[in-house]
Amino acid sequence: MTIEESATATYAARLRGLREALRARGIAATVVPTADPHQSEYVAERFAAREYLSGFTGSAGVLVVTTRAHDTPPGALFTDSRYFVQAPTELARASGLPMVRALQGDDGYAGWLARHLPAGSTVGIDGRLFTVAQVRRLRRVLAEADLELAIDVDVADAYWPDRPALPGTPLFSHDVALTGRSATDKLTELRSALADARLTHTFLTSLDEIAWLLNIRASDIRHNPLAIAYARVGTDSATLFTAPDRIDAPTRARLRATGVDVRPDGDHEAGLTELDPSARVGIDEQQVNAHLAGLLTEEQRVPFASPVKLAKATKNTVEVSHIRRAHERDGVALVRAFRWLEARLAGGEEVRESDFVDVLGRERARGEHYYGPSFSAIVAYGPNAALPHYHSVPGDDAALGPSGILLVDSGGQYRDGTTDITRTLALGPGVTAEQRRRYTQVLRGHIALATAVFPEGTTGAQLDTFARQHLWADGVDFGHGTGHGVGFFLNVHEAPQGFAPGARSERARTPHRAGMFSSNEPGFYAEGEYGIRIENLVLAVEAFPERPERGGERRFLRFETITYFPIDTSLVEVELLTQAERAWLDGYHAEVVRRLSPKLGPEDRVWLAEKCRPLGR
Amino acid sequence: MTIEESATATYAARLRGLREALRARGIAATVVPTADPHQSEYVAERFAAREYLSGFTGSAGVLVVTTRAHDTPPGALFTDSRYFVQAPTELARASGLPMVRALQGDDGYAGWLARHLPAGSTVGIDGRLFTVAQVRRLRRVLAEADLELAIDVDVADAYWPDRPALPGTPLFSHDVALTGRSATDKLTELRSALADARLTHTFLTSLDEIAWLLNIRASDIRHNPLAIAYARVGTDSATLFTAPDRIDAPTRARLRATGVDVRPDGDHEAGLTELDPSARVGIDEQQVNAHLAGLLTEEQRVPFASPVKLAKATKNTVEVSHIRRAHERDGVALVRAFRWLEARLAGGEEVRESDFVDVLGRERARGEHYYGPSFSAIVAYGPNAALPHYHSVPGDDAALGPSGILLVDSGGQYRDGTTDITRTLALGPGVTAEQRRRYTQVLRGHIALATAVFPEGTTGAQLDTFARQHLWADGVDFGHGTGHGVGFFLNVHEAPQGFAPGARSERARTPHRAGMFSSNEPGFYAEGEYGIRIENLVLAVEAFPERPERGGERRFLRFETITYFPIDTSLVEVELLTQAERAWLDGYHAEVVRRLSPKLGPEDRVWLAEKCRPLGR
Repeated sequence: MTIEESATATYAARLRGLREALRARGIAATVVPTADPHQSEYVAERFAAREYLSGFTGSAGVLVVTTRAHDTPPGALFTDSRYFVQAPTELARASGLPMVRALQGDDGYAGWLARHLPAGSTVGIDGRLFTVAQVRRLRRVLAEADLELAIDVDVADAYWPDRPALPGTPLFSHDVALTGRSATDKLTELRSALADARLTHTFLTSLDEIAWLLNIRASDIRHNPLAIAYARVGTDSATLFTAPDRIDAPTRARLRATGVDVRPDGDHEAGLTELDPSARVGIDEQQVNAHLAGLLTEEQRVPFASPVKLAKATKNTVEVSHIRRAHERDGVALVRAFRWLEARLAGGEEVRESDFVDVLGRERARGEHYYGPSFSAIVAYGPNAALPHYHSVPGDDAALGPSGILLVDSGGQYRDGTTDITRTLALGPGVTAEQRRRYTQVLRGHIALATAVFPEGTTGAQLDTFARQHLWADGVDFGHGTGHGVGFFLNVHEAPQGFAPGARSERARTPHRAGMFSSNEPGFYAEGEYGIRIENLVLAVEAFPERPERGGERRFLRFETITYFPIDTSLVEVELLTQAERAWLDGYHAEVVRRLSPKLGPEDRVWLAEKCRPLGR
Repeated sequence: MTIEESATATYAARLRGLREALRARGIAATVVPTADPHQSEYVAERFAAREYLSGFTGSAGVLVVTTRAHDTPPGALFTDSRYFVQAPTELARASGLPMVRALQGDDGYAGWLARHLPAGSTVGIDGRLFTVAQVRRLRRVLAEADLELAIDVDVADAYWPDRPALPGTPLFSHDVALTGRSATDKLTELRSALADARLTHTFLTSLDEIAWLLNIRASDIRHNPLAIAYARVGTDSATLFTAPDRIDAPTRARLRATGVDVRPDGDHEAGLTELDPSARVGIDEQQVNAHLAGLLTEEQRVPFASPVKLAKATKNTVEVSHIRRAHERDGVALVRAFRWLEARLAGGEEVRESDFVDVLGRERARGEHYYGPSFSAIVAYGPNAALPHYHSVPGDDAALGPSGILLVDSGGQYRDGTTDITRTLALGPGVTAEQRRRYTQVLRGHIALATAVFPEGTTGAQLDTFARQHLWADGVDFGHGTGHGVGFFLNVHEAPQGFAPGARSERARTPHRAGMFSSNEPGFYAEGEYGIRIENLVLAVEAFPERPERGGERRFLRFETITYFPIDTSLVEVELLTQAERAWLDGYHAEVVRRLSPKLGPEDRVWLAEKCRPLGR
């Protein structure tokens, strides 16, 4: 038996176990999302059922598996354009299920179920993995096709004997000198929102909201410094549900002093069922899972958009000054890493993609406050870069040559900030005119967004246009959003704001406000050929701080770029840039030199100055 | 008693009648929208209750009136930024109710009721004036404040003894040589959508959808060539509910041949209640009123987005070729009107705003297929133009001087197309540097949208950014959307598409597709000083018609400008324009000359050539 055959057999056995359990409960199909009970974007291994069943390793996708009664298709994996190349390959080697192209945030699987299942069938899901709003939408679509929905179908035991346990990494405090606000202060603000909405409690399930609110961190999810936990906040009480023994002593004392009780993770459902019948509990229907919300009575349950999300997204001045320093440190690490790369390649030594992933981690680790990568670094050479979320696998990765284009997307978690930067660079000659043109259009889009001025409240969809306009003019586009919110020693993808086309996603709909911190990362991808992306992080700041306030008028915002590392000018078709665009690029490079040079040794400093040389003329 | 006192007394009596009727039914407050049972934007006099009760004459606004029990405020009028100046003035002279600033499409009145009424009160509305979706939202907001909603409260009899009857103007056919598609063809397409959704019927209430579907027109609503009617379309039947005797004989015969029954208007509710219990009736919840929808059982009623709306918005090639010709005719009329104006002012003769409104109508009326104005023309001089929807009143209007800025927004209904054009022009010296700068930024925004290239499916909010970017850069903005859909011998404001900021309005959310016809009208308004707007109509067309289709990829679109009249270049700060912008302006003017000159007499032709002279250098 070849390795591939053995893999196929493994997945077949898992699917068989799942289908038997579904049949035993009279369920015709199930939906396995990429989700945990907290709606985390990245999940702990215990919750990686979608990957375990399908073999698809990407970060986003929804798996549908049917019992194949009445000749229904076996199921399908729904994923977005980032994975249209990777997913079919991985699926073919594992579960053999087909991929369906879906838009980001699309509920396409619901329509698929409605079309393929015979009327009268029941779809069964684990209601812990779907928000209240998702279940409502799914139920509606299914009902129109005369399908039932059961939300208490958790059959993992039947197909996943060796399922990993809940992680319980050490839980520690994020110092108030870094966060700028104490947990007491944040709780006071949240309680004031509860009072405004005449609520007695709210129940938080979002891990980064809990971490931010209580100034706590852990390492339960790879790259995301989070503790798996729940929190109940009342007008004069607060409870954190997580294993008490994993909390370090000073944090335990601080939580106690802040009036936060700690109870075991297993108590979190009781945290809802034990409430007085007269309690009015604010539930964020876009966040809280349907199973938990179902533990409250209709009278207890009140729809409530969590104010923590917006408070967290709006960075305070202490956070901002730390973020700038963390990014200077990150830039220093990148200077060392890229200079290392250049020297190696110049010396004719072999460097493979995953070698450079290691070097990036090593150089970042030399910096103060470093905690780990903020995500799996992408080092993608040539055609590999055409997959926006390519990850090199040691032993199966490309050797970097002395020609063509390299894309490097990486970031660090520092206790004083989270970084995320993408650079695309020429490793030598062999760059086509089309590649230079696309690179320049991507850069022009990046600059247009970096220099945009707009009224506070402008949405991510409105701003997204700045980044795409020059590619559009040539009749091309890229298949991902232009940017996402970024946490502060938290998730590198942070809700709610961002830059994205369309009208449905949260990133497209959310109004930007001062203090929001986002990525600016337009790109271009030619399947099978090359990929380009240029990413800096940007902070929304007041555009006209000197201007007198005019009654009732909205403030105007602009972005401050807070990522300090040269953009490869050797790929720029300078003729395509306007004067203003050239001035921005030169000004940006002068700022990079000003920020990084004092922190570099003499050779690194010379290297940086060369990379930051102003454009000619 | 002065005239104003007498007006105040009249409105006080009306409000008294309303409040007594509400009290008699135990209602604490009512909501009077600007709406008819068809959700028309402009309503026949019979449905102008909001104006009748409040004295506010603007085109958009929602009136709330309370019975003043428990010291609640008397009520309020909610309107948008177009009327923030006009509304308080009109209200003060009439009902005395206060104005509340609301954003377009905002449901601020629901929150106001929730805040001001004592818990346990009942809000009563006429459910015929609110869509299913509006009632659902209103009910939810009220329920959170423990307020009831009754939707069967029509008390117009109590306060409106002389209420006008339903209009019943002659109903005639829109010739298929103009529409390009027969009613039979359109019905077939609709029935195919019914079959796809497994529906037996749909019930249409939108007047322009009915007019488009059946190729009928009338004059029931000022400026909108519509018949007040309802239509029920089944898989093998169709019924038009409207007075049969007002239909001309050829149209009656054509409808009969098309399989369309005609029944009196009064039968339209029976058109729902008489349906078989097993009928599945598609109801557009954004369109159909809550009273009508409530006549169906839950089993009969199926949410259904009317496909007629999108079909109507997507102009066919026959319509497009007629639209171009109608716009040439409109341009000819404008050349004559503006040349008349220029000569009058040069001769030192007095011209008042409303004189020019008359001249515009007179010159348009000389053209073939003319039917009437497509809306009340706006001729606004100096500070009057700062009100985006100012309407001059003969006797109370400004005399145009030989200096400053004039804004003219007008349009015609032709049987072969609907026009809508705004020009802002200098009447002489006395134009400030700021005004020139703003005019140029508005023009640059107009050009950016006119020349944008974008993937099919890009939304109105994404495209809106093109038009605002240059004003934003100076920290200023304008308070209305950048554009609206335009009908074909139908409403000058046509759903669904347009250009608008934000994420909530239909115009912001709707994806653009080839064939959609919209206005491009950025502006700038300095309250009490001046106003600027530059408007052309644009058709979405394929951007790269020569490019080979690539599997699965979206087409790219661009706009063809279909309004032919010079843009005043004397107000342009040429230094602020890019080369490409200058080229667009010169190219546009060359096209205007090419289209209009052959249709003009020698003097008009010379005048036009002078206005269309290329920019210097």
